[in-house]
Amino acid sequence: MNKTHLHDIIKATLKEDIGRGDLTSEIIFENGSNSRGQFIAKDNGIVCGLQIIDIVYRLLWKDIEVVLHKRDGDTITKGDIIADVYGNTRTLLTAERTILNIIQHMCGIASVTADTIKVLDDDTIRVCDTRKTLPGLRMLQKYAVTCGGGFNHRYRLDDGVMIKDNHIKASGSISKAVKKTKDKLGHMVKVEVETETREQVLESIEAGADVIMFDNRSPEEVKEWTQIVPEGIITEVSGGITPETIAAYKGCGVDYISLGWLTHSVKALDISFNLIDSEE
Amino acid sequence: MNKTHLHDIIKATLKEDIGRGDLTSEIIFENGSNSRGQFIAKDNGIVCGLQIIDIVYRLLWKDIEVVLHKRDGDTITKGDIIADVYGNTRTLLTAERTILNIIQHMCGIASVTADTIKVLDDDTIRVCDTRKTLPGLRMLQKYAVTCGGGFNHRYRLDDGVMIKDNHIKASGSISKAVKKTKDKLGHMVKVEVETETREQVLESIEAGADVIMFDNRSPEEVKEWTQIVPEGIITEVSGGITPETIAAYKGCGVDYISLGWLTHSVKALDISFNLIDSEE
Amino acid sequence: MNKTHLHDIIKATLKEDIGRGDLTSEIIFENGSNSRGQFIAKDNGIVCGLQIIDIVYRLLWKDIEVVLHKRDGDTITKGDIIADVYGNTRTLLTAERTILNIIQHMCGIASVTADTIKVLDDDTIRVCDTRKTLPGLRMLQKYAVTCGGGFNHRYRLDDGVMIKDNHIKASGSISKAVKKTKDKLGHMVKVEVETETREQVLESIEAGADVIMFDNRSPEEVKEWTQIVPEGIITEVSGGITPETIAAYKGCGVDYISLGWLTHSVKALDISFNLIDSEE
Amino acid sequence: MNKTHLHDIIKATLKEDIGRGDLTSEIIFENGSNSRGQFIAKDNGIVCGLQIIDIVYRLLWKDIEVVLHKRDGDTITKGDIIADVYGNTRTLLTAERTILNIIQHMCGIASVTADTIKVLDDDTIRVCDTRKTLPGLRMLQKYAVTCGGGFNHRYRLDDGVMIKDNHIKASGSISKAVKKTKDKLGHMVKVEVETETREQVLESIEAGADVIMFDNRSPEEVKEWTQIVPEGIITEVSGGITPETIAAYKGCGVDYISLGWLTHSVKALDISFNLIDSEE
Amino acid sequence: MNKTHLHDIIKATLKEDIGRGDLTSEIIFENGSNSRGQFIAKDNGIVCGLQIIDIVYRLLWKDIEVVLHKRDGDTITKGDIIADVYGNTRTLLTAERTILNIIQHMCGIASVTADTIKVLDDDTIRVCDTRKTLPGLRMLQKYAVTCGGGFNHRYRLDDGVMIKDNHIKASGSISKAVKKTKDKLGHMVKVEVETETREQVLESIEAGADVIMFDNRSPEEVKEWTQIVPEGIITEVSGGITPETIAAYKGCGVDYISLGWLTHSVKALDISFNLIDSEE
Amino acid sequence: MNKTHLHDIIKATLKEDIGRGDLTSEIIFENGSNSRGQFIAKDNGIVCGLQIIDIVYRLLWKDIEVVLHKRDGDTITKGDIIADVYGNTRTLLTAERTILNIIQHMCGIASVTADTIKVLDDDTIRVCDTRKTLPGLRMLQKYAVTCGGGFNHRYRLDDGVMIKDNHIKASGSISKAVKKTKDKLGHMVKVEVETETREQVLESIEAGADVIMFDNRSPEEVKEWTQIVPEGIITEVSGGITPETIAAYKGCGVDYISLGWLTHSVKALDISFNLIDSEE
Repeated sequence: MNKTHLHDIIKATLKEDIGRGDLTSEIIFENGSNSRGQFIAKDNGIVCGLQIIDIVYRLLWKDIEVVLHKRDGDTITKGDIIADVYGNTRTLLTAERTILNIIQHMCGIASVTADTIKVLDDDTIRVCDTRKTLPGLRMLQKYAVTCGGGFNHRYRLDDGVMIKDNHIKASGSISKAVKKTKDKLGHMVKVEVETETREQVLESIEAGADVIMFDNRSPEEVKEWTQIVPEGIITEVSGGITPETIAAYKGCGVDYISLGWLTHSVKALDISFNLIDSEE
Repeated sequence: MNKTHLHDIIKATLKEDIGRGDLTSEIIFENGSNSRGQFIAKDNGIVCGLQIIDIVYRLLWKDIEVVLHKRDGDTITKGDIIADVYGNTRTLLTAERTILNIIQHMCGIASVTADTIKVLDDDTIRVCDTRKTLPGLRMLQKYAVTCGGGFNHRYRLDDGVMIKDNHIKASGSISKAVKKTKDKLGHMVKVEVETETREQVLESIEAGADVIMFDNRSPEEVKEWTQIVPEGIITEVSGGITPETIAAYKGCGVDYISLGWLTHSVKALDISFNLIDSEE
Repeated sequence: MNKTHLHDIIKATLKEDIGRGDLTSEIIFENGSNSRGQFIAKDNGIVCGLQIIDIVYRLLWKDIEVVLHKRDGDTITKGDIIADVYGNTRTLLTAERTILNIIQHMCGIASVTADTIKVLDDDTIRVCDTRKTLPGLRMLQKYAVTCGGGFNHRYRLDDGVMIKDNHIKASGSISKAVKKTKDKLGHMVKVEVETETREQVLESIEAGADVIMFDNRSPEEVKEWTQIVPEGIITEVSGGITPETIAAYKGCGVDYISLGWLTHSVKALDISFNLIDSEE
Repeated sequence: MNKTHLHDIIKATLKEDIGRGDLTSEIIFENGSNSRGQFIAKDNGIVCGLQIIDIVYRLLWKDIEVVLHKRDGDTITKGDIIADVYGNTRTLLTAERTILNIIQHMCGIASVTADTIKVLDDDTIRVCDTRKTLPGLRMLQKYAVTCGGGFNHRYRLDDGVMIKDNHIKASGSISKAVKKTKDKLGHMVKVEVETETREQVLESIEAGADVIMFDNRSPEEVKEWTQIVPEGIITEVSGGITPETIAAYKGCGVDYISLGWLTHSVKALDISFNLIDSEE
Repeated sequence: MNKTHLHDIIKATLKEDIGRGDLTSEIIFENGSNSRGQFIAKDNGIVCGLQIIDIVYRLLWKDIEVVLHKRDGDTITKGDIIADVYGNTRTLLTAERTILNIIQHMCGIASVTADTIKVLDDDTIRVCDTRKTLPGLRMLQKYAVTCGGGFNHRYRLDDGVMIKDNHIKASGSISKAVKKTKDKLGHMVKVEVETETREQVLESIEAGADVIMFDNRSPEEVKEWTQIVPEGIITEVSGGITPETIAAYKGCGVDYISLGWLTHSVKALDISFNLIDSEE
Repeated sequence: MNKTHLHDIIKATLKEDIGRGDLTSEIIFENGSNSRGQFIAKDNGIVCGLQIIDIVYRLLWKDIEVVLHKRDGDTITKGDIIADVYGNTRTLLTAERTILNIIQHMCGIASVTADTIKVLDDDTIRVCDTRKTLPGLRMLQKYAVTCGGGFNHRYRLDDGVMIKDNHIKASGSISKAVKKTKDKLGHMVKVEVETETREQVLESIEAGADVIMFDNRSPEEVKEWTQIVPEGIITEVSGGITPETIAAYKGCGVDYISLGWLTHSVKALDISFNLIDSEE
């Protein structure tokens, strides 16, 4: 992840949550009070985003000690101590919710990604995300997908071409649409075509697509269509697949299955922060 | 919602998704091409965040027509046309994902809130959110909760006092903690105390708490404890309650049930955008 | 105060004052030159905002030593040394005006607040601020009020309800206006009603207002009206009261007197910065 | 004033005051309600900053009508209608405090500037401001000074050289300090020297200073010193002069008197906003 | 180009050039004065960036009329009228330098790109840019390259993989480096390998590189090496090639020639703005 | 240079180049890998902007060691080691392009400035820049000009008055235009008049201009006109002068020659970054 962008996200989140100050902790605790605290897993899953703990603290205080017991991508089990921290009590409490809100969300994504891969149980197929992410959180979410063992689809509208039905209609045909983009774009951009029929798949192959997506297709169709795609062209199936329905795609021969579900319908992984002991 | 803050969120989201430009649509469509489009519900629920459609378009183009067929808080049924839009084709396609990502998330929150209230089936109890929101999205999320019929807990660390176990321990007692905050804070700030025992509830009443929260308590305990709290003091139960478990709290006599689940574990409501016809 | 917000204010102020650079000091002093300096009170009052000194220096240079001889809220007397500093001469001079502009303003507010409380001479009444603050400076100003012994009224339009004449007219009555807000708002928001007649006070009590404000009322009226307000409801008087006129409200029985004057008409407290000796 | 910078100031102020929304007005008023309103002078003085009314409204709503009855720099008398406005009721009320906070501050500066000039009663002397402005408000404040008939001293550390005692000491002499800056700086930058003795004045003349400031000097000293400064070199007196003490400088022959007081110790000019009638 | 990002660049540029205001024009021209103006080519080349004219004006004033006589990518000849504009005189003059600084730079890039392609005189080879762009100007610069008929190399470190000597050394071999990236990255990212020997070219082919770059190679070497690269793998030559030296690469058989020169060493194309007649 | 502004420029540049992360280096290098690197001159010229190296690294990593072997303004010769650096390998590679893009541009400006001065070969004439700078880069560019021995013209529209033909026409005469500005502006602002005829020069002298610019005049005209301008008024010639044509102005008697060319048509100075050895 890009640290300068990460800093911006965290600063905005701290301002959103703290406003002019933490009324409660600023009144209750002396500025000189220090405490120990722990981040503890309350559920099983994959942990990630741990560098955020240190960044949040540094934005609020100069010298909170952070000892991480896990690394991004590690499996955690309920009860595991993820990190030990020590320092200014006010800061530990003011930062608590911001840290947990970010990390629980990221761990939730990493965990459901790992679960989905397990359910699919086919290591010839890669599970990947989409652009169906939450506003402002794309970098965090896409990073979390990789921590869970998944792969990233294109990041923005500017780093890959995706030719959909409207583009095809406007251009006259898949061939014309692909040609139009290849005529204008440099050599580092891949061109993917969304297809809904066997004919479109064949036309996309002909047209020189780098990637062919089977849109909303059943496992059976996918199995059949992948066989007509020559090596060197990547295949993807997408559309309404969830961790509940993905198992049916095992063995279908596709290269990638993409799921909006990984990032647009996230269940937070439960993590708690406990203050152990304080000293004035 | 505050429109100046809303603009900032949307601008950041557009920059995140578009980068330097929409490679595909800028190549495929002429700048002079116009199209009609529709936002259509693909699932049942509560709609909200509709003003966002117009704001997104205005940031990218001067004159997209938007006709809304629903208002925030309305019920939508699969197949309902939520909005008709007309204008520059490139803009309609470039904006599609940003609009859907925001609205689907907000509708998801409003819908689960409404469902939860229905499941609880007790109109003497208000369902409310928490500070367990996603980074940068608190205003959108808390607004969506109200569209679903829920209520908002405090918004930031600066607009309400919440005295938790660490604050109590550091102050010596609930009475001392409440007194400390009341001695410093003005008359527009409410003071809530988190309690885990009957004794703490009694001490909080004595101390002059405005709100008493029963932390992680069973429906039975809540029923018993609400009876000892005099009128004028508001009661809340919180901790691990989900739409699945809330029904048990029916008739428990508490004023508020707060659920982090409403905002930290959101399932997007499915909405699609279709381009109907284009004209050069 | 929220440190991330404080940083933003200070960065903007440095950019406003420095532009592309401090032409004079960058030419006159070598980069290797160090100096000692002192912040000295030139008038009597209450000091506050001292953490700003260190933050300003850190944004311009890595290692300026700052030794504070006072703490926020302390009384200062003409001639008192507030802080000793040592380090890069250019930085000390470039930062001088920014630090003084901020601190003198904050000390001015703290001092007039303390003076006002002294003039009122009634410790059953709390002196508080309003939303009549200067653009962008609310956090600094409201913090300074508390350093002078005053209290903060609501911070924003989003953390408290204030029902004024227009709201009452639009709703039909005080009762309807209060009910409307209580029906929509969560349990952490207080509702205040502005009243101009005895009848309105009675109606507000009936309606369940948390706070009743007597708008532009004489000490006599206030004395009479406070007697009809039952315990548990907080009273406030506001409107055109200044440090010159507040004494008349002594003993009037009100809970809060709010003064826009504390933040919208501030006289800076004189503080100077002296460079003691420099060394190449 | 620079409109792009003005927009930024106003946006930040709206976010500071509104937060997530105006709880009261959003609940009380329907979105379709429109009202008429008036800005009315409650005191005598000089008005300025009127373009801000329209900018604030536009950031919150699309079509508020604003009819200004005054222009920046006009004299206003208690009771004067400054502007008539019409449009969305919520917006008029939500914007009220932000508009008044900015305008009252600017009018306060313009008015005290005009008063000071009147008290001085010597049109051979120009009254000017300093860099002793409030954080983030310099553009607004310096503009207001000109509306009151005053002049602006340098705006930033980067648009003029001011050689003070520390610079002189570090350089060895006034001559060396002036030479050093003239050797490095281009032809659009003026060089001012702060002097405390007659000898320093003479040395500054010799050194080629463009402007000579008499620091903290009595009217008598100023009168004497101005006579030794040849035409072509501008003179300024500064230091602790206030509207109360300025009259003594009448006829002293100096070109400029600068007062930090104009911008660091501002009394707001009272202006009110009244809603006249509303319609659903 | 992404309009929201474009707005940010232009706003920052206006603030950089205007500061608190345009001292000269605000004093000389009445606010009611309108004028006609023209942007005129003073040299031959390719024009681009014309949408910027309107955006700059809109940020400063409400209704400047802009009539463009050229479209991005058009050829212009010395004396051509590029645009006619009409409106507020102050705004036309205040905006002049900002508009010209941006457009002249972009036209310079488009023009040198077109010249380079002409000099190369081989339409089987595409001319493309690099990441050697000026800080903050990448979107403008890369867009200008396409207006001149060139192509864009990768935009950021996050939308394409470029394996250079250090990466190869750290991985042990080209094969291992390519495999490492392909194991981690999704299907929309291309992998390019920088090669300096024939052996490295062969190894890159074997390793499955999508693009092979010949780093700092003579036309002869390029001619030889392109013959060993199978169809389907794209070739690029890069390193120190300028418009002066590119002709030698004609007929070398490579797919792309990339030149940092197009964006890091730009000569502005001369364009002037003339005010034709003004009216009060 | 102002460090807070410099930080903003660099942060924006890092975000522009890195996006969500450096795909290649994050995959190839372990986070624990450290390396040595060197910045080496590939051409002769003047070096500047070296403080940027450290700032870029600090924004990405905590402890990169930077040893500078040159100071801003020093001459560098092809092969010179400018800086040795040591630390986290990923950071060194991720930062490489951003550092080089900034520094090569600044060194290019400093070098051409020094060359121009050498070509002019007349130390009674100062070479200066203009406002013809690239968007967002003015501070960097103007600083680089001074490192090359040049001088800065005004920085913004707000720190100097420049009366051009349109202003003269609108005011009626040069005298009226100068008077208008002197009547409104404070004593720290200089007034320059652009002249195209001998009569205008005389009129400008009469009017009290501080600086007189000869617009687009030949060396002969300049030589003649400078003789009629009395001492105390500064003269400048501007318009289309380039490093190629400047020699003709030697001995013309003018004080300043300004060249847009120094900043709007910059050729980058070649500098390379080499990784020497890495260790896991």
